[in-house]
Amino acid sequence: MAAAEQPSLRTLRVHLEERSYPIRIGFDTLHQAGPAIADATKANRAAVITVPGVGRRYGAPLERGLRRAGLRVERLVVPDGDRSKNLRQAARLYDALLDFGADRGTAVVALGGGVVGDLAGFVAATYLRGVPFVQVPTTLLAMADASVGGKVGVNLPQGKNLVGAFYQPKLVWIDLATLRTLPARERAAGLAEMIKHAAIWDAELFATFEAQLEAVAGLEPEPLAAGLEKSCAIKAEVVSRDERESGLRMLLNFGHTLGHAIETLSGYRRFLHGEAVAIGMAFAAVRSEALGFASPGVAPRLRELLERAGLPTAPPDFPRRAYLEALRVDKKKRDRHIRFVVLRELGRAEVVPLLPAEILPRRFPAVARRSS
Amino acid sequence: MAAAEQPSLRTLRVHLEERSYPIRIGFDTLHQAGPAIADATKANRAAVITVPGVGRRYGAPLERGLRRAGLRVERLVVPDGDRSKNLRQAARLYDALLDFGADRGTAVVALGGGVVGDLAGFVAATYLRGVPFVQVPTTLLAMADASVGGKVGVNLPQGKNLVGAFYQPKLVWIDLATLRTLPARERAAGLAEMIKHAAIWDAELFATFEAQLEAVAGLEPEPLAAGLEKSCAIKAEVVSRDERESGLRMLLNFGHTLGHAIETLSGYRRFLHGEAVAIGMAFAAVRSEALGFASPGVAPRLRELLERAGLPTAPPDFPRRAYLEALRVDKKKRDRHIRFVVLRELGRAEVVPLLPAEILPRRFPAVARRSS
Repeated sequence: MAAAEQPSLRTLRVHLEERSYPIRIGFDTLHQAGPAIADATKANRAAVITVPGVGRRYGAPLERGLRRAGLRVERLVVPDGDRSKNLRQAARLYDALLDFGADRGTAVVALGGGVVGDLAGFVAATYLRGVPFVQVPTTLLAMADASVGGKVGVNLPQGKNLVGAFYQPKLVWIDLATLRTLPARERAAGLAEMIKHAAIWDAELFATFEAQLEAVAGLEPEPLAAGLEKSCAIKAEVVSRDERESGLRMLLNFGHTLGHAIETLSGYRRFLHGEAVAIGMAFAAVRSEALGFASPGVAPRLRELLERAGLPTAPPDFPRRAYLEALRVDKKKRDRHIRFVVLRELGRAEVVPLLPAEILPRRFPAVARRSS
Repeated sequence: MAAAEQPSLRTLRVHLEERSYPIRIGFDTLHQAGPAIADATKANRAAVITVPGVGRRYGAPLERGLRRAGLRVERLVVPDGDRSKNLRQAARLYDALLDFGADRGTAVVALGGGVVGDLAGFVAATYLRGVPFVQVPTTLLAMADASVGGKVGVNLPQGKNLVGAFYQPKLVWIDLATLRTLPARERAAGLAEMIKHAAIWDAELFATFEAQLEAVAGLEPEPLAAGLEKSCAIKAEVVSRDERESGLRMLLNFGHTLGHAIETLSGYRRFLHGEAVAIGMAFAAVRSEALGFASPGVAPRLRELLERAGLPTAPPDFPRRAYLEALRVDKKKRDRHIRFVVLRELGRAEVVPLLPAEILPRRFPAVARRSS
């Protein structure tokens, strides 16, 4: 049983007072998650919420471990894709939990990417006013982004993430080996968020990514685990200082203003979230220079790293007025100004209130495609 | 403008760290709520969620005050009755909020009884992952019970309150004058919760109710405001020591084990919640004596006060095995035992784990109808 004794590579603790929880980062550790989940949740049952492909591939070792730890286990499968993240699927899951006899001693375990985590987390947050929640992310984006912050929720026909909650997991269990089956494009999308965390907060981590990007992207355990841990630690620090998203946490929206607009305008089909954010970051860096917040050189350095990761950096060619319209419906606006995140340098960001017309220069996106 | 300067009778602060909020208890104060809501929420819009009758009667003065305080106001009306407390109505309200352009600077104001408060509170807790929430309860039950504790939620076809959250309001504004139009039966149901708080926690308040019950029930402002304030303070103290319902808060379930069973068995039609709880309390007091937790005399004293308030105390005549079955599906159970709240004396309660068959004596309910 050498495998069972193999320690996890890294443990990071997210500090949120009585809602604090650990993130355990390992390699080939899925079969070891059961006892850790039992210990973190004190549950006697577990509902594993997943999508068909991930469930087939990774459900069995996780569930065997849970059963060995003494839990009754049921797998609840939702259809693939962002379209599952809605109130109807949540209602289906409530019904399935009731059929399973789930009470407050039942853990909800999200096995999969961001969609599964958001949907399962919303159900965990609201079923019986909250049951213990565990995340087992299997995409790099979910590992780097969704595993810290407690944002859970579903979409409405009118827009994404319009209904949700802030709800912390009891444990995040990351098995990096699950990334071996992740398509390269989705892997790059996850790198985008890790690069974002470095760009807004940690010049040293940014330099490390510049030195080791190919090793991280190639899933070499040590550099990947180290980079992911630091990336999660940055998000954890920002979130723990501002759990309910009043101020500092806005920094995490770096690249998201334009990114969301791009996702909206392309109907969430053409770009992965991380890709849209990569374009948004490259653009925000260019604007940071142009508006005098950052020195020249910041934008090209960021763009180069994003491109080495295989990410797009040029905004798609929608009319400027379509972009302006998309910015104006951003749900975070409180008035006509948008709190736009600019870089001061690589490793330091700031929120500034700007009008949509100030964010988007004249002749955008043509000018952005050239200048970036 | 003498009315505008009239101070509220009482202010009680519910202490929950950064989620603390005030309960302001007054008489004929609805028209003064606007500035207080604006101040507590920092909102620039307010969605007033209510039912048709309450909206017609009390919507205008509340909304005028909100508009005078500079807010844009929209009234959202849901159908009367507990059947509105479901995911479909929540989804309708999300749509209406989006149509209203509601963002995180929009307050959700619940104007009405428990159903409106629970539904509006759930929507406030989940729309955009949470917007500021204010309660303006217009039933005595909602004032005494729902205004403290942060429990919000909706029903599923399978049972009540199966989906929800813990979400604190920014302000609870109580205008006791709204009780003048409340049917006597509903007023009594509210008194049941106030009596419950006294019975589990405060011998002195229990004695005060024994001395002044008719004045309180007759809506004399001073005794009513004082009794309500103390009753809310008890719940606030219990809740603030145990916000997420792990231990102490179970005391508030005094009378609810049998009460819920009665509501289930009668299809939520024959009894108001407070009436079912009154029967449950009278019964729990009898069992407290019979099982040796309380001295003889406790049960008759409680029953007498409940009956003076116009509340029923005898369990309806369903078969014992139906009661046993109803107890077993209580969502709070974690094993075969039920955490049953017994009285030690009037003013002191305790949670004890009992099997359903221990809670219900042989030949229940016939024996309970006689012995109580």
